[in-house]
Amino acid sequence: MNNFFYQIPTEIYFGKGQIKQLGAAIKKYGHNVLLIYGGGSIKRNGLYQSIQNILEQNAMEAVELSGVEPNPRIETVRKGVALCRQHNVDVILAAGGGSTIDCAKVISAGARYKGDAWDLVVNSNLITDAIPILTVLTLAATGSEMDRFAVISNMDTNDKVGAFSPLFYPRVSILDPEYTFTVPKNQTAAGVADIMSHIFEHYFHQVKGAYIQDRLSEGLLKTCIHYGPVAYDQPDNYEARANLMWASSLAIDGITWRGNEVPPSVHPMEHQLSAYYDITHGAGLAILTPHWMQYVLNDQAVGKFAEYGINVWEIDAKLNPYEIANQAIQKTADFFVSLNLPATLREVGIGDEYFQVMAEKASKGLENAFYPLTAKDISAIYNASL
Amino acid sequence: MNNFFYQIPTEIYFGKGQIKQLGAAIKKYGHNVLLIYGGGSIKRNGLYQSIQNILEQNAMEAVELSGVEPNPRIETVRKGVALCRQHNVDVILAAGGGSTIDCAKVISAGARYKGDAWDLVVNSNLITDAIPILTVLTLAATGSEMDRFAVISNMDTNDKVGAFSPLFYPRVSILDPEYTFTVPKNQTAAGVADIMSHIFEHYFHQVKGAYIQDRLSEGLLKTCIHYGPVAYDQPDNYEARANLMWASSLAIDGITWRGNEVPPSVHPMEHQLSAYYDITHGAGLAILTPHWMQYVLNDQAVGKFAEYGINVWEIDAKLNPYEIANQAIQKTADFFVSLNLPATLREVGIGDEYFQVMAEKASKGLENAFYPLTAKDISAIYNASL
Repeated sequence: MNNFFYQIPTEIYFGKGQIKQLGAAIKKYGHNVLLIYGGGSIKRNGLYQSIQNILEQNAMEAVELSGVEPNPRIETVRKGVALCRQHNVDVILAAGGGSTIDCAKVISAGARYKGDAWDLVVNSNLITDAIPILTVLTLAATGSEMDRFAVISNMDTNDKVGAFSPLFYPRVSILDPEYTFTVPKNQTAAGVADIMSHIFEHYFHQVKGAYIQDRLSEGLLKTCIHYGPVAYDQPDNYEARANLMWASSLAIDGITWRGNEVPPSVHPMEHQLSAYYDITHGAGLAILTPHWMQYVLNDQAVGKFAEYGINVWEIDAKLNPYEIANQAIQKTADFFVSLNLPATLREVGIGDEYFQVMAEKASKGLENAFYPLTAKDISAIYNASL
Repeated sequence: MNNFFYQIPTEIYFGKGQIKQLGAAIKKYGHNVLLIYGGGSIKRNGLYQSIQNILEQNAMEAVELSGVEPNPRIETVRKGVALCRQHNVDVILAAGGGSTIDCAKVISAGARYKGDAWDLVVNSNLITDAIPILTVLTLAATGSEMDRFAVISNMDTNDKVGAFSPLFYPRVSILDPEYTFTVPKNQTAAGVADIMSHIFEHYFHQVKGAYIQDRLSEGLLKTCIHYGPVAYDQPDNYEARANLMWASSLAIDGITWRGNEVPPSVHPMEHQLSAYYDITHGAGLAILTPHWMQYVLNDQAVGKFAEYGINVWEIDAKLNPYEIANQAIQKTADFFVSLNLPATLREVGIGDEYFQVMAEKASKGLENAFYPLTAKDISAIYNASL
């Protein structure tokens, strides 16, 4: 096991009706609120009105930034920064999924930075101060509600870049599974793929003795496999929504990867897809993941894939390790298909026109991955995913 | 899944050589240090000298409280409180296992409380302020390094009582598995039993849909079962010590029980044993656990025990649930025996002389346990454990 640092300062209020904690929580940090949300689903499910009531009851000043994109853009961040400055915002409330929360994170730091917010995205070291952020989560997927990461897109340059800072941890996150009852089926499925991908990124490591991390990862993967189809078929199944929501947070908070950290592989490859085509992140991950698994399967990796097959998919341990590994990869692909996620890039309108440039960009940093990948390797995986 | 609140503010520095973080960490909180430790093992393994060097390099003032008992006593807490007042202590450093850390916690609050520290133990509501605590862990067992609990004994009244406060979370805990290389075999084994018991206490719940908590609990139990014997046989096996150390923290930090909290059963029963006989806590748990399991096994509980048998002990799922449950309980008992833990109360010098009074005391609060227990039930479990 590698040395690590672990701390999760975020306060989580989990469960039905926890919105009641919001007023007191905001008051601890400020009075001039910037409310950030996405396409307006929070108006349809009643959350927007609940928030308005709480802001009013607590006599708070609020400005709004709405319309945050599924892949949040730097232009939107800049709008938020301007609002913060104009209205002396001292606390930011993000009500939405990971995109909205990621956008809020960079706004929070951008408002306390003299230059352009994009500087902070490309150089996390410049993040030295930030407005406190609180979140109300409406989608189980990215884990942004309990982590220190944010991913922002710059469509002018086709860049999708991840920034990170301890200042990005939300101070408080309200996780009420009922707010995810209205998430459409395709977004529910994409969220499950995203959670599973966060786990895979570190589960396939070569760190000696990171046993505890592997067993916890398997527990979270089983949770996704068990409840993904339930939430897909019964959107208002509380039990399924609750398990997926908590899995989304725990998949990324560190218990699966502190001590066995490796650079992620499939996320950087997918970020290029959504930087060039603006597709749903989780859908891109579902397409690439089985092909990445197949590509990296070799004598060095087969033991780990067999472990995955036995412990997660309950494949007979007596079979040949390659047989177990191949079955496990097939089961992973079948699982995504069972959730009606796309299985090929063509299905989401992606051809091979940018493969070379995307592969070049994605390859940066992948030399230390579980299976080191060059631009050529990544290009091959893109091609296999066509 | 039940509603819950989750936050773990403690900063964890995990791994070899992390003691190098200690100086900077202490400085963040204070200058006048109270160093607390137990029987002197930290002098034998070099930790004491490392701490002295760090205190000296940082020109800190330090006073010491040594000799904290395995079941820390209120008299020792009072001594620590007096030292804090006398020397204007502004930061407490606990170097040891759970006993030392628990003692430090109550001292930290006692020093900021006008009355007697025992008041705080019996009424946690009185804990409103505390001196910051940092820890260097030397025993994988209680999880006190990352939780908000402390258990203190009053041998005059044969009371062993748990107190809790968010102020009890250590600010920083240094978890270097190498400091546990010198832990004697019997303490290593007792620590494993303690970690497993923390998991069992909540794993055996009847909360609907706490699936994720169950899978994470099983992952931690597997870790204990896998590495307990390795650490027992090879005290300096880093991998085993690291996995057990991180398991001790994660077993109690909330991922196994937030959302499915039930009052613990075996811990209150064991606390009576060590309040009357001062035995090793983990040894008492190892004795009682299999008998408690056998006693509560009924038609309502058998499903959960079968799940335990299948998922943790890999017992054939096709067997009759009672057969799986009974095999799982036997395997649990056998596992503790394999670590040379005592299997009967007589082996640790306990007769039936206080069973009635201990059972009466332990029964308080157990009416809401997984299997509600009356004093009569508890007495029966003590008798079965003779």
